[in-house]
Amino acid sequence: MTFDRDAAVAELVALLGDAAVLGSPADLSGYERGTRYGAGRAACVARPRDAREVQQVIRWARKHELRLIAQGANTGLVAAASPDDTGNQVIVSFERMRHEIDLDVHNRTVRVGAGVLLQSLNDYLQPHGLCFPIDLGANPSIGGMIAANTGGARLMKYGDVRRNLLGLEVVLADEPATHLDFMSGLRKDNSGVDLKQLFVGTSGAFGFITSAILEVHPLPQQRACALLVPSTPERALDLLRAFELKCGELLTSFEAMSKAAMECVFRFRPQIRNPFGETVPELVILVELTSAMPASMGVDLESMLETVLTELAESDDATLADALLGRAEESWQLRHAISDSLREAGKVIAFDISVRRSSIQAFRDLMIQELKQRWPHLKVCDFGHLGDGGLHLNLVWPHDCGIEPDAAVIQEIRAFVYHVLVSQFQGSFSAEHGVGPYNSAIYQRYTASNQQHIAGSLQRLLNPDGALGTVKFGP
Amino acid sequence: MTFDRDAAVAELVALLGDAAVLGSPADLSGYERGTRYGAGRAACVARPRDAREVQQVIRWARKHELRLIAQGANTGLVAAASPDDTGNQVIVSFERMRHEIDLDVHNRTVRVGAGVLLQSLNDYLQPHGLCFPIDLGANPSIGGMIAANTGGARLMKYGDVRRNLLGLEVVLADEPATHLDFMSGLRKDNSGVDLKQLFVGTSGAFGFITSAILEVHPLPQQRACALLVPSTPERALDLLRAFELKCGELLTSFEAMSKAAMECVFRFRPQIRNPFGETVPELVILVELTSAMPASMGVDLESMLETVLTELAESDDATLADALLGRAEESWQLRHAISDSLREAGKVIAFDISVRRSSIQAFRDLMIQELKQRWPHLKVCDFGHLGDGGLHLNLVWPHDCGIEPDAAVIQEIRAFVYHVLVSQFQGSFSAEHGVGPYNSAIYQRYTASNQQHIAGSLQRLLNPDGALGTVKFGP
Repeated sequence: MTFDRDAAVAELVALLGDAAVLGSPADLSGYERGTRYGAGRAACVARPRDAREVQQVIRWARKHELRLIAQGANTGLVAAASPDDTGNQVIVSFERMRHEIDLDVHNRTVRVGAGVLLQSLNDYLQPHGLCFPIDLGANPSIGGMIAANTGGARLMKYGDVRRNLLGLEVVLADEPATHLDFMSGLRKDNSGVDLKQLFVGTSGAFGFITSAILEVHPLPQQRACALLVPSTPERALDLLRAFELKCGELLTSFEAMSKAAMECVFRFRPQIRNPFGETVPELVILVELTSAMPASMGVDLESMLETVLTELAESDDATLADALLGRAEESWQLRHAISDSLREAGKVIAFDISVRRSSIQAFRDLMIQELKQRWPHLKVCDFGHLGDGGLHLNLVWPHDCGIEPDAAVIQEIRAFVYHVLVSQFQGSFSAEHGVGPYNSAIYQRYTASNQQHIAGSLQRLLNPDGALGTVKFGP
Repeated sequence: MTFDRDAAVAELVALLGDAAVLGSPADLSGYERGTRYGAGRAACVARPRDAREVQQVIRWARKHELRLIAQGANTGLVAAASPDDTGNQVIVSFERMRHEIDLDVHNRTVRVGAGVLLQSLNDYLQPHGLCFPIDLGANPSIGGMIAANTGGARLMKYGDVRRNLLGLEVVLADEPATHLDFMSGLRKDNSGVDLKQLFVGTSGAFGFITSAILEVHPLPQQRACALLVPSTPERALDLLRAFELKCGELLTSFEAMSKAAMECVFRFRPQIRNPFGETVPELVILVELTSAMPASMGVDLESMLETVLTELAESDDATLADALLGRAEESWQLRHAISDSLREAGKVIAFDISVRRSSIQAFRDLMIQELKQRWPHLKVCDFGHLGDGGLHLNLVWPHDCGIEPDAAVIQEIRAFVYHVLVSQFQGSFSAEHGVGPYNSAIYQRYTASNQQHIAGSLQRLLNPDGALGTVKFGP
């Protein structure tokens, strides 16, 4: 370390107060390690309370030549919020900006501090008959959700974070610690370059997100689910089309679960039984309808689902082999149990990828075939968001196969999957987790060089000295 | 002119063929004048057929030091596609890229050439049960819609162009004529900086848009409309909230029409009668529900509207003074007749602005009061998209008042409205028409200087020599 850490920390305490700085190893440990990947050593944790204090932290850090990392709830999966091993990175935590929630009922928007947690926001909105419906397996902060542009399992109805972002406050880590106010809360505004878009999905590497205005939605008053078995996996897309045309605006989720993924659940979670009896279908679709319309409006989602299923069963095209209606909780329990069950079955090599919906079966088929040939032990236990093209192509190297895969083999498998995905299918190697140190080599490998040049120039423009963030978007 | 126009034109003809270049005054005239504002002289019109030919045009123009302007259907309202008086700007028309439409049914997306017209796209999609639902009063090209990020009257349900854009092909007007391929067609992709966002709503000043992939939507199978009279204009927002909570996903439009605007229609369009009889209400709301769900799904929009109206009429809060149900065509006819009727009533000073929905009545009230005091002849004949905060605050200086307003007075009125709008209400001076020479002075005046600096740097990065476009986003 080239600086006097204790003196620097004392200076920050003098600036912002005791509660604004954490410096002891015990205090730091919860911030230094990511949920799945990423671990290092931080110089300290700074905990500003607003944009002005963020500016003070930036000026202090620049003076001491410390680099900065924004951290929300530390739930990210690409290590974008984790420090490296140098010990001269400062984690800027937004946990003291968790309580600012200001609802504008008539604008149907909410102004939130960057540190507000998704669950807290939804708890706050619920009595007003509203929600922020980005549906995730974690409880991230709003700032983190913006930096990762999270999507989730209900994207086909509600979109991603970008779609619901109507205002943003940002502080740049440049010399003047530039404060940018995009907090308009407007739905229709084309009065210039929409600069706030630059901070969405860029892993906190372009500027500190301190506040946001989000569009919120009427809370669903009804929900209906069914499990569908397409006659062949390929026909799943015909089912999707039928549901889109018949249930239109109310179609909320269309999730796919492969036979191999479900078998792991039934084996390692015996309390979850196979709803289809003895045999496990090749592919099961979880379809969900939701609506803000109360039943008093004459809309009954259960009977709507029943009507579609009856029509499909009676039609000649035989898209549907089997269907179970009205088991919302049980269905989602099965879907949500997959990730953990796979980890009990073996070493999981996880992928968060997407392809065009029309290519999803061709990609799956090719992967299953090619991976089996190359690594016979490997099981493709995929599941995902068929409705939006998102696919968790999780591969399991079974514990009970007698051989442990080493890091080189895992690297080889990853490289093979990404290569086919991007080169042959123009897919995305990071559908909803963003880019961080964990996958930035993949970014560099598969992003067109002229695009990397532009992205790098943007980063230099907004974060000129590289004082902020863990990702380099330039070549 | 510092160049030999005829020689340059001949060179372009030799490169791309006869049909690719228009040079005679008669041929040029339709391209040189904008729909409402903007008129000048072009060096010629280039009509490339694809991205490769756009690159050739760029190299040719740079060699001859000619500047370039992208033009779609020439329907814009801020003169962004019109040449200046120098005669050394080349209009690049996308009219020979009007026929590439490639539907991916299972991805529910369509790949289109930049010149494809909105109406042609919808004609193509209709037999497939699909549509591109951005609803406008004009028939623009898709490239133009992206450059202006158009919104329209159904934004609350379908969003703007940005929300529906899943892929983009761009050619920069830099020295190598850089070709950028963002044509993924993916719904979920956070594998880097989403650079295509930079070309949305930036008036064609950052790069040539040559192709796009759009998400398309199931064609509505049902529609129901009603005209509502809120008990006071302020209560319109309570009605909006009631409809959002009760009709949720199916609420498509919530349009407001002021008494003064409707009076002009009834006076100058006698074939359109006042549906409320003798007196004209202070404010009328046109509410529209649409749904992709056919009636066979058990959803009947007419009876749904009736249920809401009955509930509102029976409730104690007296938000609703009167309502007329089931006159979809008649209702929209009234709404669409406003613009032209105002022009018959007098000199129209038009505004395309937006504020937060929660501020819309306070802004209207203040404007009506202040404008009357300052310019007693002026009539505020506003109408707009209450559901998304968009407001056409059109002012009429009546023909029959005996005084003609001169340009200075009109300037003063404009300046006053923009000042109150932006300074007091944080509103947008251009909600859906974008920025062009017509309003770029307003952009410079009201955009924060640090934002102008960033926008200008982006423009220099992507369009380094200013070879393209009519707008300067820098300070």
